[in-house]
Amino acid sequence: MIDHPAYDVSAWSLRESELNFDVLPQSESVFALSNGHIGWRGNLDEGEPNGLPGSYLNGLHELHALPYAEAGYGYPESGQTVINVTNGKVIRLLVDDEPFDLRYGTIRHHVRELDLRAGVLRRSCEWVSPAGRAVRVRSTRMVSFQQRAVAAISYEVEPLEDQVRLVLQSELIANEEIPRVAGDPRVAAALESPLRAEESSAAGTRLRLVHSTTRSELRVATAADHRVEGPEPTTKISSESGDDVSRLTVTAVLDTGQKLRLEKYVAYGWSATRSLPALRDQADAALVGALDTGWQGLLDQQRAYLDDFWDRCDVEVDGDTEIQQAVRFGLFHVLQAGARAEERAIPAKGLTGSGYDGHTFWDAETFVLPLLTFTSPRAAAEVLQWRANTLPAAKERARQLGLAGAAFPWRTINGDEASSYWPAGTAAFHVNADIADAVVRYVAVTGDDAFDKDTGLQILVETARLWRSLGHHDNAGAFHIDGVTGPDEYSAVADDNVYTNLMAQGNLVAAADAAERHPRHAAELGVTAEETAAWRDAAAAMTVPFNAQLGVHEQSAGFTRHQVWDFAATDREHYPLLLHYPYFDLYRKQVVKQADLVLAMYLRGDAFTPEEKARNFAYYEPLTVRDSSLSAYCQSVIAAEVGHLQLAHDYLGESAMMDLEDLENNARDGLHIAALAGTWTALVAGLGGMRLFDGNSIRFAPRLPDALSRIAFRLMFRGRRLRVEFTNSSATYTLSEGKPLEVLHYEEPLRLTTARPVTRDLPAFKHLPEPTQPAGRAPRRRHHPA
Amino acid sequence: MIDHPAYDVSAWSLRESELNFDVLPQSESVFALSNGHIGWRGNLDEGEPNGLPGSYLNGLHELHALPYAEAGYGYPESGQTVINVTNGKVIRLLVDDEPFDLRYGTIRHHVRELDLRAGVLRRSCEWVSPAGRAVRVRSTRMVSFQQRAVAAISYEVEPLEDQVRLVLQSELIANEEIPRVAGDPRVAAALESPLRAEESSAAGTRLRLVHSTTRSELRVATAADHRVEGPEPTTKISSESGDDVSRLTVTAVLDTGQKLRLEKYVAYGWSATRSLPALRDQADAALVGALDTGWQGLLDQQRAYLDDFWDRCDVEVDGDTEIQQAVRFGLFHVLQAGARAEERAIPAKGLTGSGYDGHTFWDAETFVLPLLTFTSPRAAAEVLQWRANTLPAAKERARQLGLAGAAFPWRTINGDEASSYWPAGTAAFHVNADIADAVVRYVAVTGDDAFDKDTGLQILVETARLWRSLGHHDNAGAFHIDGVTGPDEYSAVADDNVYTNLMAQGNLVAAADAAERHPRHAAELGVTAEETAAWRDAAAAMTVPFNAQLGVHEQSAGFTRHQVWDFAATDREHYPLLLHYPYFDLYRKQVVKQADLVLAMYLRGDAFTPEEKARNFAYYEPLTVRDSSLSAYCQSVIAAEVGHLQLAHDYLGESAMMDLEDLENNARDGLHIAALAGTWTALVAGLGGMRLFDGNSIRFAPRLPDALSRIAFRLMFRGRRLRVEFTNSSATYTLSEGKPLEVLHYEEPLRLTTARPVTRDLPAFKHLPEPTQPAGRAPRRRHHPA
Repeated sequence: MIDHPAYDVSAWSLRESELNFDVLPQSESVFALSNGHIGWRGNLDEGEPNGLPGSYLNGLHELHALPYAEAGYGYPESGQTVINVTNGKVIRLLVDDEPFDLRYGTIRHHVRELDLRAGVLRRSCEWVSPAGRAVRVRSTRMVSFQQRAVAAISYEVEPLEDQVRLVLQSELIANEEIPRVAGDPRVAAALESPLRAEESSAAGTRLRLVHSTTRSELRVATAADHRVEGPEPTTKISSESGDDVSRLTVTAVLDTGQKLRLEKYVAYGWSATRSLPALRDQADAALVGALDTGWQGLLDQQRAYLDDFWDRCDVEVDGDTEIQQAVRFGLFHVLQAGARAEERAIPAKGLTGSGYDGHTFWDAETFVLPLLTFTSPRAAAEVLQWRANTLPAAKERARQLGLAGAAFPWRTINGDEASSYWPAGTAAFHVNADIADAVVRYVAVTGDDAFDKDTGLQILVETARLWRSLGHHDNAGAFHIDGVTGPDEYSAVADDNVYTNLMAQGNLVAAADAAERHPRHAAELGVTAEETAAWRDAAAAMTVPFNAQLGVHEQSAGFTRHQVWDFAATDREHYPLLLHYPYFDLYRKQVVKQADLVLAMYLRGDAFTPEEKARNFAYYEPLTVRDSSLSAYCQSVIAAEVGHLQLAHDYLGESAMMDLEDLENNARDGLHIAALAGTWTALVAGLGGMRLFDGNSIRFAPRLPDALSRIAFRLMFRGRRLRVEFTNSSATYTLSEGKPLEVLHYEEPLRLTTARPVTRDLPAFKHLPEPTQPAGRAPRRRHHPA
Repeated sequence: MIDHPAYDVSAWSLRESELNFDVLPQSESVFALSNGHIGWRGNLDEGEPNGLPGSYLNGLHELHALPYAEAGYGYPESGQTVINVTNGKVIRLLVDDEPFDLRYGTIRHHVRELDLRAGVLRRSCEWVSPAGRAVRVRSTRMVSFQQRAVAAISYEVEPLEDQVRLVLQSELIANEEIPRVAGDPRVAAALESPLRAEESSAAGTRLRLVHSTTRSELRVATAADHRVEGPEPTTKISSESGDDVSRLTVTAVLDTGQKLRLEKYVAYGWSATRSLPALRDQADAALVGALDTGWQGLLDQQRAYLDDFWDRCDVEVDGDTEIQQAVRFGLFHVLQAGARAEERAIPAKGLTGSGYDGHTFWDAETFVLPLLTFTSPRAAAEVLQWRANTLPAAKERARQLGLAGAAFPWRTINGDEASSYWPAGTAAFHVNADIADAVVRYVAVTGDDAFDKDTGLQILVETARLWRSLGHHDNAGAFHIDGVTGPDEYSAVADDNVYTNLMAQGNLVAAADAAERHPRHAAELGVTAEETAAWRDAAAAMTVPFNAQLGVHEQSAGFTRHQVWDFAATDREHYPLLLHYPYFDLYRKQVVKQADLVLAMYLRGDAFTPEEKARNFAYYEPLTVRDSSLSAYCQSVIAAEVGHLQLAHDYLGESAMMDLEDLENNARDGLHIAALAGTWTALVAGLGGMRLFDGNSIRFAPRLPDALSRIAFRLMFRGRRLRVEFTNSSATYTLSEGKPLEVLHYEEPLRLTTARPVTRDLPAFKHLPEPTQPAGRAPRRRHHPA
């Protein structure tokens, strides 16, 4: 955990004004810059000290054998791990004869600030060397949203008291030493020296390294160029290169009042297929483009890109400044993770760290894509297109498992299954319905017909085929899906998981509907009337376990009959439970790691009555320990829906502060992109009550907890730009762009036009008595700010 | 599979008269000699060619890390593997200047014969070298039952046509090269060069090697001595030694009519605690004992030991000579596996190979101990004493898993859990009840009160404690055991497995009963009246799932509702299914690897009505694929009980021929000791209808399939020796030793005395229509011999 507060609360930036070595790895994640293609962790410019050096290129990975003490049929043999690629961030500084290293000497002043509107990381530091030389270093770093292959740094150093001799070494470094980690399965298996040198050069101010990976056979080219400003005639430049390092050296003697300034432009290119010369040229070309744009030009482009972003999707929260900051921080990082991923996956930690081996999971479709769909639909489409591109691998996996259609991987970088632990991997088939659901949502929100009949239809058809072959009708005709694992990873290999069954039901119907909408395209996929009828039959006969005695749904068949976990006897230090109790024991008892039935009540809200939702929420809250970052936001949404606004606020706060307070104790490996996106969902779908319905309509049901005075959010829907603003008493709907649109305010249809906003009073909110959580696992209560 | 017939059918021996290199590894297992302490595979004397060189000492193992791609709490970190220890079998021969190697030259005659009454392996071979020199080699090998640390060989060679110069090299060799195997999880992970040389010597005819293992830190001393008889003056002797080899060399020039004969005596000692000198002395002492007894003396002791054995337990079968041979072969190998194990486990493959890493499983208690209990009760007690000795490890494992009492390991050599695959390992808690059941059976059969109140009570109490903490009462009071794996490894992590629940029920009651019998000893274990009451309550409230609609028991809750495996679409080449289908799919469907509910109907027959047994058997037969060697015998027992005598005979045949025909395709790694013991059970409990009841009584219900004309078997029961013989019409009970005994013949009580046998007619047998098996999985039909 990060002691609160580590960062200054501010509406449009995240700022640290003290350097705490203990949370250096966490701050490297928080201050990471990315555009979805390149990711640079917020390592200090001089490279050391560091928590985890990190430079990533989306999709660039190495393979490794997955070990099994006892192998089994269909166990994936090859794992995938994101690798730390060539580091272009490093600018080392020698002050007289001493390295600028903040572990030694005295820090007089230290500020780092992530500017959410400018899209840069600024740093300012005053340091006195052990020998007494005082210097000020200022740097600004960016990963360009507009120029996808480019990152850049402006670095400036000046003496504060005496003349100093400075040496700057601006480097490209490959195969940096990475800290070894062991024990915690959530931490990525470190790969040592994953890059094999292919070419290295240094000429004038230009540096270049080309490397390739051994097993995955991917090639990466990194090029850098520089502009140097320093006092004549003492400023001198040289460069040199070796296998794993290419280096520009600048020396200068500065008097007080003089500055040495370096602009560093870095370009990356990687490919599985392109030749070394082609890739070298690609990186050089990107570099020339960046040099031509220049530093100020890059800054201007970055701000313009973000101005548009914030205009589309900013969320304003009055009454809780932490959440105001956190939601914008989250929006910014989700944008960074997805903006330019372009037919690559969005990893669970984005490109902010190597956690979860850089894999993508169902989080991308279920937690991250909703936000992107409503704010950056093109980015959402790119992720779904990536999934569609991996259909051959998913179909092969299904075939291997004896199933029809496509079985998308539980965790992957390249589309192949990389999950070795099958009860929570192979058996977690819901990922397929989650992807289908993202397709349906994307089409509903954008009306993108071209996507619908091609990419969308393919995914829906192949996943529907999977479900039809995975489930079966019993003697009485009821359709069952047995032996699968739902979202809650403290249950596994269970029959008729309600979340899975309802999502599969939606998947089957959506595929049949899409095939009807696009009969010619469906026929090309071999879909027949018999097949869609079988999908509809299975959907209509889907089993949804319900315990009539308790009046609640069973997370899966038999769940509510199981023994309740002994929460009273569970030491608070023993969370997360998975690190202190065996899976077999977690699996067989009533204890919920993360929203499962509650998530079903959000994503398939139509399948539950309001009374069932309230009863289910009351039943599952005391069982849910939230040992996952994927839970709080969803509990917030349903809490708001069923009658617990304070609890909704509390869970919203937990989701929002997940990484800023490091609540899961692993922000060091990267941020939880899904939780950051979930914060937006908690505000918009939870307090804003937004739901899609009937495939093409949108409904709002705004409601504010006591502590908040106003929320405003923006959306894109079917080509319109919408703004929704609400207080404790009323809501105002503004259509700022696009053709008229009908929306629901609660049950009332409103016709919105760009002519003028529409305002309506809020109905009275019916509060229910709050449920309890397991001992010690209640979310932190949020209060009015003083 | 071994092409039938590979071995000559003979009542008291197993004989091959042709050397088939393709089945060399299988024949090495079949011809393995062991006394439960030392195991020598039937490798050819000259060492090569070989399938798998194998010399084992019960319990001597090495440790190795268990790898996990994703680790989890409570996963065992250290694996155990039996190692191939110093080979004392090798006697190499040079004929003139050519090595005696059966891959070259011409084999004129080859016979190997395992003599089940003499307890030796005889070999006779006439071979012509590539250069045309003809020799006859005769050897006899034994592992002594009477002198536990000793094995010996008599080796004789003579020229057949011309004078030859012979060189014999009699060796002790450590760290032999072992074939590497991969892919099949059932094959032991090979460990390369596991032995570290500590001492080596050769003086006169005496050889010695002392080695130790690296991680398990065990020391093994091997010593050999020789008696040489050859023609004077050409016979010369020398010896030498190095780290991993100690060698006696004999040279001689022989004319036809002359022989060179070598007696080789080998002694082993191993220990985790004894010093090098102590262990060296131990091996030397054993060797001196053997030399003193001499070759003929050892032969005489061996035969005397076996005469007594056969007198106690021989089974005669008229009408199926293959089964007659196989059952004696099985009895002999079970004796070999267990006779002198002496507070060590009986591994699944005995000491006949390295399969299953040399681990012991529940098979030992459930399949092997019944035979030993009725025939060699001391050996049965030794195994149970070994389990009791591992109670500290089992209690620690239970603690680690958050449970009370003791959790015995699923697979182990040293008592620590070595199963990495938890759904079939950790979750297979039934092993604890299986051990308890063996305790109850042992006490019932022997009346061993000293064992009952000490070793037995400890095991019963700690396992009962486990069950009480593993299960729970639901709101209605019913007791459930959720999320466990029963014997059927094609289902896992299920609720209320009938086998587990019934065995646990028996365990709980037996512990309460034993605590009542021995209140003082129970009090020392902390047992209170409250605790035994809780055990009895749980037992009384035990849930036994029953599908009322189908009128059958559910293997576990919900099992009969699951989809039935598509047997029609399953290629016959795709058995065993586990090598061709993923576990997740096997687990969620109705497909049974091995008797589970059917085993419950045997071991807890009292819990089912005859009608239920018949209906259950008819239901589960078409689902049971027998991808395990642990199934056929048990299906034979229940088939005989419910009304299918021909099927009982067929399954008896399959169990009997398991290794002789290599039906599981892995006899190369060692014999299936449990299946061999099961053959006896199929005869005695199946066709003989023997059951224990009321804790101290015994009942018979003999019935013969058409093809058989007579069965006779012998037993020990409460100090008596009993003989039961039956034909198609009558049964004769003979008490050959001991006080009068009352037994049941069907429902009729018979009072047996040593005065005279009692004969009774057999009641008419009620045949039921035969159930079917999955397509292609019916057992081979057995017919009348021609």
